[in-house]
Amino acid sequence: NNGVQAVMLRLMSTSSPAAASEAKDEAAKASKEGGDKKAVVINSYWGIEQNNKLVRDDGTEWKWTCFRPWETYTADTSIDLTRHHEPKTLMDKIAYWTVKSLRFPTDIFFQRRYGCRAMMLETVAAVPGMVGGMLLHLRSLRRFEQSGGWIRALLEEAENERMHLMTFMEVAKPRWYERALVITVQGVFFNAYFLGYLLSPKFAHRVVGYLEEEAIHSYTEYLKDLEAGKIENVPAPSIAIDYWRLPANATLKDVVTVVRADEAHHRDVNHFASDIHCQGMQLKQSPAPIGYH
Amino acid sequence: NNGVQAVMLRLMSTSSPAAASEAKDEAAKASKEGGDKKAVVINSYWGIEQNNKLVRDDGTEWKWTCFRPWETYTADTSIDLTRHHEPKTLMDKIAYWTVKSLRFPTDIFFQRRYGCRAMMLETVAAVPGMVGGMLLHLRSLRRFEQSGGWIRALLEEAENERMHLMTFMEVAKPRWYERALVITVQGVFFNAYFLGYLLSPKFAHRVVGYLEEEAIHSYTEYLKDLEAGKIENVPAPSIAIDYWRLPANATLKDVVTVVRADEAHHRDVNHFASDIHCQGMQLKQSPAPIGYH
Ligand SMILES: [Fe+2]
Ligand SMILES: [Fe+2]
Ligand SMILES: [Fe+2]
Ligand SMILES: [Fe+2]
Repeated sequence: NNGVQAVMLRLMSTSSPAAASEAKDEAAKASKEGGDKKAVVINSYWGIEQNNKLVRDDGTEWKWTCFRPWETYTADTSIDLTRHHEPKTLMDKIAYWTVKSLRFPTDIFFQRRYGCRAMMLETVAAVPGMVGGMLLHLRSLRRFEQSGGWIRALLEEAENERMHLMTFMEVAKPRWYERALVITVQGVFFNAYFLGYLLSPKFAHRVVGYLEEEAIHSYTEYLKDLEAGKIENVPAPSIAIDYWRLPANATLKDVVTVVRADEAHHRDVNHFASDIHCQGMQLKQSPAPIGYH
Repeated sequence: NNGVQAVMLRLMSTSSPAAASEAKDEAAKASKEGGDKKAVVINSYWGIEQNNKLVRDDGTEWKWTCFRPWETYTADTSIDLTRHHEPKTLMDKIAYWTVKSLRFPTDIFFQRRYGCRAMMLETVAAVPGMVGGMLLHLRSLRRFEQSGGWIRALLEEAENERMHLMTFMEVAKPRWYERALVITVQGVFFNAYFLGYLLSPKFAHRVVGYLEEEAIHSYTEYLKDLEAGKIENVPAPSIAIDYWRLPANATLKDVVTVVRADEAHHRDVNHFASDIHCQGMQLKQSPAPIGYH
């Protein structure tokens, strides 16, 4: 079985003490690029050395400090984009109409400026995973119980959404009033989701599931405009090429396609999480879909 | 260079589309053990299949859902345990004496019951990394800026501390009033650290650095009692054997030794983070020590 082989390969690659210490070295070091210029000189004092360089597949230098080669992946664009959770229970319907009603002002605000829309909405999309993951972490500590991997799964989702933002902000630059709006919206949404998740994780995950369904729809519209030439199909930002392992000549269209596939995976994870709660269970009772993208 | 080779090996092991899809499969699946008995039947509905099994190095089934084979590591026990950040500035001194004064009631409460002490304090130790990571995540979103890898580094620390707890709760079972105490302490400490980190991350990381220095001291005392036979050197819990890649006949002494090495790494990371702030910089300006353990 290939899956087993892949695991074994990973295990082997870090199982000897020497390899483990190398892996530590790799991770401790990093290039100075990827954002800022100034360098800290005292690193080695705390045993944290940053002399060696990470490299890409092709041997060129890894230039990001915000993510590492082993966090990159090839998106599974074969995922079913049309899958939809039919709202059955009253809770489902409230979640569904909450999302639908949020869509209305959003459509009016952004019209068809999909680049800007994507950038702005990803600042919100990266909140639920972080809040959910943190609350499950605190719960695991408080109750002295396992997590079933859900802390990691939700934090992975949050990080993936943040990488969407890091990508789209290369395409559309936020203006000052957009920055102000983001700060306000984050303040409200963080607290609302925090409270919502404490009160009903079932409802919270369902809402996110439906938000992801809308995100898929928006990215499909974005793709239509790119194909019709209404939005310029610029080259893909280099951060996106490295993160999703895209070819060097990839374009914005390729980026939107893989981002849309990510959203479809988040949809599945969140509807699944809600379904677990609907069956009267807690998330930890069913192993989390880790690395599902 | 071996470090580069290790990275290349990792890249190769996931760079082909087939391998990437295998890696996804590995992750999506998981065994049903590791905590609870009931199984969810609707998983495959959301494209999340859990039929295949993960395996250990030796081919036996992987029984944990809360962590995966590729998260395990060999602790670097050669780390300098005596390194200490001499408090120089007023802030350093306040941080130092805050921690020292917290030590006093803790010593009286636990006396030399180190198993219980470790279990209780790890529920607190796993909070700062999660709070710091979350606040940096939200900040990255709000300001449309990179993180330098610090979100991940702090979340890794939080997860590592949580694994300490998962280990020690196999050795010492919490009693009802201890559970009640943990809930209270978490409520207070989470909010205090949240606020503290917002006001002064420099101070917050320094406090954690000193807390880790105290943790190293406590684990050294724990080891002394184990060596002197005052505490029974029971076999290591199986979760610890898998997480730290310990030999099958490892004992509690081995576990305490690797946990202490972890704390020394956290000490370095947190003093380093505080040092960056002391130099008038933000964390993202210096690459984070990811996978430093
Ligand atoms: Fe997204
Ligand atoms: Fe999403
Ligand atoms: Fe710890
Ligand atoms: Fe620690």
